Amino acid sequence: MVYKGLSAEFLDSSGLSIGDLIKVEKNGTSYFGILLDRAEDPDEKHIVIKLNSGYNIGIDVNNATAELVESGDKPKIELAPLNIEKDAEKPDISIVSTGGTVASVIDYKTGAVHPAFTAEDLIRANPELLEHANINGKAIFNILSEDMKPEYWVKTARSVADEINNGADGVVIAHGTDTMHYTSAALSFMLKTPVPVVVTGAQRSSDRPSSDAYMNLISSVVAAKSDIAEVSLCMHAEEDDSFCYLHRGTKVRKMHTTRRDTFRSINSLPLAKIQKSKLKLVDKAMVYNKRSTESLIIEDEIEEKVAFIKSYPGIQAELIDYHIDKGYKGMVLEGTGLGHCPEELIPSLERAADESIPVIMTSQCLYGLVNMNVYSTGRRILSAGVISGLDMLPETAFVKLAWALGQTDNIKEVEKIIHTNVAGELGEKSSEKFFLN
Amino acid sequence: MVYKGLSAEFLDSSGLSIGDLIKVEKNGTSYFGILLDRAEDPDEKHIVIKLNSGYNIGIDVNNATAELVESGDKPKIELAPLNIEKDAEKPDISIVSTGGTVASVIDYKTGAVHPAFTAEDLIRANPELLEHANINGKAIFNILSEDMKPEYWVKTARSVADEINNGADGVVIAHGTDTMHYTSAALSFMLKTPVPVVVTGAQRSSDRPSSDAYMNLISSVVAAKSDIAEVSLCMHAEEDDSFCYLHRGTKVRKMHTTRRDTFRSINSLPLAKIQKSKLKLVDKAMVYNKRSTESLIIEDEIEEKVAFIKSYPGIQAELIDYHIDKGYKGMVLEGTGLGHCPEELIPSLERAADESIPVIMTSQCLYGLVNMNVYSTGRRILSAGVISGLDMLPETAFVKLAWALGQTDNIKEVEKIIHTNVAGELGEKSSEKFFLN
Repeated sequence: MVYKGLSAEFLDSSGLSIGDLIKVEKNGTSYFGILLDRAEDPDEKHIVIKLNSGYNIGIDVNNATAELVESGDKPKIELAPLNIEKDAEKPDISIVSTGGTVASVIDYKTGAVHPAFTAEDLIRANPELLEHANINGKAIFNILSEDMKPEYWVKTARSVADEINNGADGVVIAHGTDTMHYTSAALSFMLKTPVPVVVTGAQRSSDRPSSDAYMNLISSVVAAKSDIAEVSLCMHAEEDDSFCYLHRGTKVRKMHTTRRDTFRSINSLPLAKIQKSKLKLVDKAMVYNKRSTESLIIEDEIEEKVAFIKSYPGIQAELIDYHIDKGYKGMVLEGTGLGHCPEELIPSLERAADESIPVIMTSQCLYGLVNMNVYSTGRRILSAGVISGLDMLPETAFVKLAWALGQTDNIKEVEKIIHTNVAGELGEKSSEKFFLN
Repeated sequence: MVYKGLSAEFLDSSGLSIGDLIKVEKNGTSYFGILLDRAEDPDEKHIVIKLNSGYNIGIDVNNATAELVESGDKPKIELAPLNIEKDAEKPDISIVSTGGTVASVIDYKTGAVHPAFTAEDLIRANPELLEHANINGKAIFNILSEDMKPEYWVKTARSVADEINNGADGVVIAHGTDTMHYTSAALSFMLKTPVPVVVTGAQRSSDRPSSDAYMNLISSVVAAKSDIAEVSLCMHAEEDDSFCYLHRGTKVRKMHTTRRDTFRSINSLPLAKIQKSKLKLVDKAMVYNKRSTESLIIEDEIEEKVAFIKSYPGIQAELIDYHIDKGYKGMVLEGTGLGHCPEELIPSLERAADESIPVIMTSQCLYGLVNMNVYSTGRRILSAGVISGLDMLPETAFVKLAWALGQTDNIKEVEKIIHTNVAGELGEKSSEKFFLN
């Protein structure tokens, strides 16, 4: 739409049109930015400008003044025809899009960002991808990652399996960053893959000059061509565009709300660095699954009724009972320190064990090993039947429990699965050396 | 007790007595350590040795062999008489003990550690404290910090207030490390103090050679004598004994299950370094409350019915409804990314707002600023009445909400308190520079 009503009058009287760089003064503050079109404006009194920061803001024109800084063109959408010829020399990499910032466009309605692109649009926006591989794009759904849930992990695993079974030499998954590490952990458990599966995303949408989408995608394609046949997560390693890290899918976590190097390996080194399209192991001694010609194995049964509960001062035992009464099949506690919770919870934890509901203890410290043998509270929690999450991230333990319960409802079998290293999620007994790196 | 039954026979036949350095072989593994006495052994078949690591382990003597490495003495407890004369030249520092590892002894029953010392015992164990100040010790309770809850925060605040009102020039609080940062945040909000209030603890109990208890205590006393009249937290800054950091009580978090430098300032620099009993500001430009002769103000009303809820893939809206139905007066959500949760929760979040129950959004990223204006989900969550926790740690937001609800049940007033900087908990808008330092 074009502006209407009050906002249109405001722009007309100042001689401004869409695409212009303008300066708006309001309540003593100046805003510089590009005047954007907007899809809808119920009260017809807002204009939207894109700031230098890359964010769009809506400004109520009441009591505002505006002036032209530099004339610009109305943004155009010109789609170059996709003209892809398969190169037999290059590997076939599939990009599976699930949504998120990496695949987003501006929502003119609100000035916010919502997911919209398909995987094919990603290629259109990043034609250099084709220098690295034959790209097969596929959008399987289009949701923000905060709305991901176990059933989507299963759908994603099946789509990835289809790509690999159809001959893909590697798969890249475009994903929102909020819960990307839950998904990378889920895929790590569900897929025993003979080729790389790389989850990636972006902290800045691709319409922003500071977007990390392009470098993350290219680096992910490089990782998908590599020898590392695991589920991994590829994102910026530093705030600038120096290089990307490839993290093991079960040992990584989002650690900053806005930084581009938000993902960090916890209790582990990253698997590899990817710099200028070259992949290099971080530690040559790192053991990983190598690319092979074996068939993919998918184990995608998952129990959706698993709870993830934070322990805190004042938490009531009845919260544990609530989850038992609601039919939850398992719980992960994010305890304190070495893996503790208030002693008052113990009778309810015993009840869970009596009803064959496994409870896994993890630590809200995030770093370090859970060890319930050191203090008396920990020993009592162990005696109540709670299972140690060892050095697993709370998120990884949550995902693994859902996956373990997809295979068995026998609590002893679940414990055995939890304590068996399936996808690099259990590391060294002493993880003290990995801290805040 | 002395050993009985099978374990006594085992020790007699090997010619071993308590205090000896012994070597035990069992199932192909050798254990070296000091043979300890034990309080109780229902099945009379375990011996306890203290390993070099400082941990005690119990070993079932079945199929074990043991030999003497070096004879030792039975550990004796010889309490030196406390002979404290007040030095008028030195400041008066009170040490208030709440329990925890810093004040712990070995539980011979289990080989685990449980809290037992009183504050006076702390002085006895660390007589050098008297070189720095006149020490007034007081044990207010003796609980592990995982069992701390809001009512204990109030009791602790009142004890600290008593010490200050009775003339203490600074107060040190000995506390378990698990929830130490929840307590330091609570005291930060409850006490407007004219003198330093320093919370400290230990990651290794004081009977272990690697204990950090001594250096943390001495450094805390130094901090308590300083000009920084705030509630702070003092712990090791590095894995070795190089120096301690003094962290602001509202900006700090336990980040590792076992490391001695587990506490880290998040979205902020630490306040000060304490090295060799000298305190130095980390950043000379840091603004802090200076020591004064004003009266202490205590605001210790707190609402105990506040929930702390982690958002995760698959979380059900009925969990929010459960807390509303149970009469919770407020909730803190630990959301994903910039402060998101699944869209499915929104109707229940609206219901909370309709019923005047404030919900604060924080981020499980821990680092960075919550900003619900960037993505459409965030905007919808904001519209549902959820209040941004900005750059507050989830734990700090949880404590602050409990404190704000102690003052008012008006949701608009609560929002105003949450968004007003009370004790350094709200920092710079852009906190990108503080990451993993």
